[in-house]
Amino acid sequence: MDKSLLTDLYELTMLAGYQREAMLEEHAAFEMFFRETPYQGGYAVFAGLQPALEYLSGLAFTGEDLHFLASLGLFDDSFLEFLKVFRFRGKVTAPREGEIVFPGEPLMTVEGTLAETQFVETMLLNIINFQTLVATKATRLTHAAGGSQVIEFGLRRAQGPDGAMSVARAAAIGGVRATSNVLAGRVFDLPVRGTHAHSWVMAFADELSAFRAYAESFPDHCVLLVDTYDTLSSGLPNSLVVARELRAAGHELIGVRLDSGDLAYLSRQARRMFDDAGFPDVKIVASNELDEYVINSIRSERGLVDIYGVGTRLATCAGPGGGALGGVYKLVEFAGKPRMKVTSDPVKSTLPGCKRWLRAKDGKGRFIMDVLDLDDERDTPFGAGQVAYDPKHPQRCKTVAAECQLVDCCSVVMDGGQVLQPARSLMEMADYCEAQLKRLPEGSLRLINPHVYKVGISKRLLDLREKLQREHSC
Amino acid sequence: MDKSLLTDLYELTMLAGYQREAMLEEHAAFEMFFRETPYQGGYAVFAGLQPALEYLSGLAFTGEDLHFLASLGLFDDSFLEFLKVFRFRGKVTAPREGEIVFPGEPLMTVEGTLAETQFVETMLLNIINFQTLVATKATRLTHAAGGSQVIEFGLRRAQGPDGAMSVARAAAIGGVRATSNVLAGRVFDLPVRGTHAHSWVMAFADELSAFRAYAESFPDHCVLLVDTYDTLSSGLPNSLVVARELRAAGHELIGVRLDSGDLAYLSRQARRMFDDAGFPDVKIVASNELDEYVINSIRSERGLVDIYGVGTRLATCAGPGGGALGGVYKLVEFAGKPRMKVTSDPVKSTLPGCKRWLRAKDGKGRFIMDVLDLDDERDTPFGAGQVAYDPKHPQRCKTVAAECQLVDCCSVVMDGGQVLQPARSLMEMADYCEAQLKRLPEGSLRLINPHVYKVGISKRLLDLREKLQREHSC
Repeated sequence: MDKSLLTDLYELTMLAGYQREAMLEEHAAFEMFFRETPYQGGYAVFAGLQPALEYLSGLAFTGEDLHFLASLGLFDDSFLEFLKVFRFRGKVTAPREGEIVFPGEPLMTVEGTLAETQFVETMLLNIINFQTLVATKATRLTHAAGGSQVIEFGLRRAQGPDGAMSVARAAAIGGVRATSNVLAGRVFDLPVRGTHAHSWVMAFADELSAFRAYAESFPDHCVLLVDTYDTLSSGLPNSLVVARELRAAGHELIGVRLDSGDLAYLSRQARRMFDDAGFPDVKIVASNELDEYVINSIRSERGLVDIYGVGTRLATCAGPGGGALGGVYKLVEFAGKPRMKVTSDPVKSTLPGCKRWLRAKDGKGRFIMDVLDLDDERDTPFGAGQVAYDPKHPQRCKTVAAECQLVDCCSVVMDGGQVLQPARSLMEMADYCEAQLKRLPEGSLRLINPHVYKVGISKRLLDLREKLQREHSC
Repeated sequence: MDKSLLTDLYELTMLAGYQREAMLEEHAAFEMFFRETPYQGGYAVFAGLQPALEYLSGLAFTGEDLHFLASLGLFDDSFLEFLKVFRFRGKVTAPREGEIVFPGEPLMTVEGTLAETQFVETMLLNIINFQTLVATKATRLTHAAGGSQVIEFGLRRAQGPDGAMSVARAAAIGGVRATSNVLAGRVFDLPVRGTHAHSWVMAFADELSAFRAYAESFPDHCVLLVDTYDTLSSGLPNSLVVARELRAAGHELIGVRLDSGDLAYLSRQARRMFDDAGFPDVKIVASNELDEYVINSIRSERGLVDIYGVGTRLATCAGPGGGALGGVYKLVEFAGKPRMKVTSDPVKSTLPGCKRWLRAKDGKGRFIMDVLDLDDERDTPFGAGQVAYDPKHPQRCKTVAAECQLVDCCSVVMDGGQVLQPARSLMEMADYCEAQLKRLPEGSLRLINPHVYKVGISKRLLDLREKLQREHSC
């Protein structure tokens, strides 16, 4: 799909206006950030950078695009001429995909001409908002699942084909490292998984015939769905018959899938049946409207599930505080001066200026707190031993211990419109994310009422915000 | 994007198994339906048929697809040979897009070989589930908005690029007939709308300069966003200055957009300000996390909003009972015999056999009730004056009045893999949907605790279900 027209109309009307005001080429900087952690959780996981950079690299209007824009009757020829040669040649600063992020932190800083930095707003939000939301959900699922595996089954309930592809990609970054989506397997080099549907069983004279036929087709990859008629009285006993027949023929049944009923109870029954019969390696797979809360409840009731298949509630990022990440993209600098939005709703006010996002770590690499400082070399940068202020309640402050190491969470990933880093694999991103999550303060991964991680702002950022607020209030 | 691999792996493993069992060419029929109305509402609106038919028409594996499948180590050469020439050549029966549908009704019946009917499950669900969910949400929004217009602003919060395109398309069918998404405007021939962002205001020395510059660029299409600093003390007075200047130059301000704060109150203040100043035609646009409940509350508090811009909560189908439509695709007939799923969870049991879905209407075209009958010409079809049974509680039944007209809700839309009907425009579908909604029983459109529309089953369908249930239970 040609994505260049995939934008809110107002990006184009604003650009046309900026052309008239001769402002298109002025230097501007925008920051993308979110205001609240999704799912009422303690953190979010940044994802979507690579597709976002691909979008920026490929931005160019076709003749057909320009013809359509001309037909709207809104734009004059000189603006359409400008669009004909319009490309993104700006600079992007961002954390790694899989990085742990908190409210107010710059997920992406985009610098360049006002034209190029403004225009890309809609699609950067589209890509980063959703992938970050999915990656975060995936970490919640894998955390709830403990050592058990989680597989993504969301294709049939995702927002169209591409929604499903984004789900598979971002879920992998968050630790859901296999999918049922075959195209996602091909495009993202992910393991693909799957067995059979109820319809398979219904297409045979009886369940045992259906199981036998499936085992004959896939003697070394056989997972049987056992709830078409009745899990305990029919599906499980029939699967045991097939497990024995497979073994007699030199194969082993891989597993059974439970897709309805009391999954904690049924998984214990299935486990006991297979263990007692000498099949301790048969895996118990569970599916059916699972999410982190259901998985948590299955485990707290001593359910014995080896693999969780999660579809709808991962693909739709369901749950309190889910559905959408409210990421926004705000102007922080224009024509060399810091800018801020000072609206009547204080929650919607922004922090002015381009920022450095620092993470204070202790000697063991554990995260202590984050600090946002101004990215301005004309003044002393924030350092360990200094005081950081709570941006919402600046009367509260905290000293970053002198022995802390301060690490820059972002780096320049694109300059002059050119991607600067080689692409990482999803598995590298997933490994990175997994390692970072272990460094969070205790309680940060808790599903309900998690630890609130501290993000402070430096004195000079606080001072700048107060100065600009005063200017607007007078 | 090549969509043929966009499927759950199990569709392919099942096909490989069916090939081994020489069942690929057996005749099968599947029905798609959902079990519960979304949003705890009284109905759903069918959408997604045209993209679904396009998917079916285009189904074909590329050499690259087959190469990838071979690399999985699951499939033998004879199966890959079969896939090389695999196409969808089946028959599809469906209602019109924009039709009102209820739980259990066949949104789509797919007949053909077991191979082709099984394989397309995942993508048909992907397309129809989401578009139906969005179209339904859109009707709730337009109903809540009364005579006011609703515009779709969801691109930045949708599930990736294609998610956003599906949103714009399906929302139009449900009555949200304009969008901010420029590409959707081009592809679906929808009106595109938009103004400017807060960043526009922040890029100028002050708000009035920003408003003047926008008005100069778009003197006949000017809608001003008035909450960058303070709506009442700054944004609205400045917009009035510009309205006067525009009029002096022979133009009229189109509107102002409120994007934060108390929208009911602010809209009344804005309306009064413009009316008192002689600008009764300036439109009040409202946005900011709107949904049907917020719109309802704004109107019940005498808010005076002319246009609602709805983004996140439309694109993500938010709200109780939202997020995903639990549409499923079940085998109802195989090798000439009706099939049903008789699971231990009675809610997940299915109705066997291919069906006729009839709608009983009174003399004025109002919907009285729906009836599902078997689509079997060997027996007398269901007619007015006969009794229909509640599928969940068959002891309850209702006679369809003899004076009712019984209308078939579905028609054959594809046969032999060929689309039979010319494509309708989204506006035709939207008109159809709007007309159908007016024919529902009173209270059906209520947002909370709506009227529950009756869907009965015929005696012969009831009898068949009981017969098959008995067979499985013994």
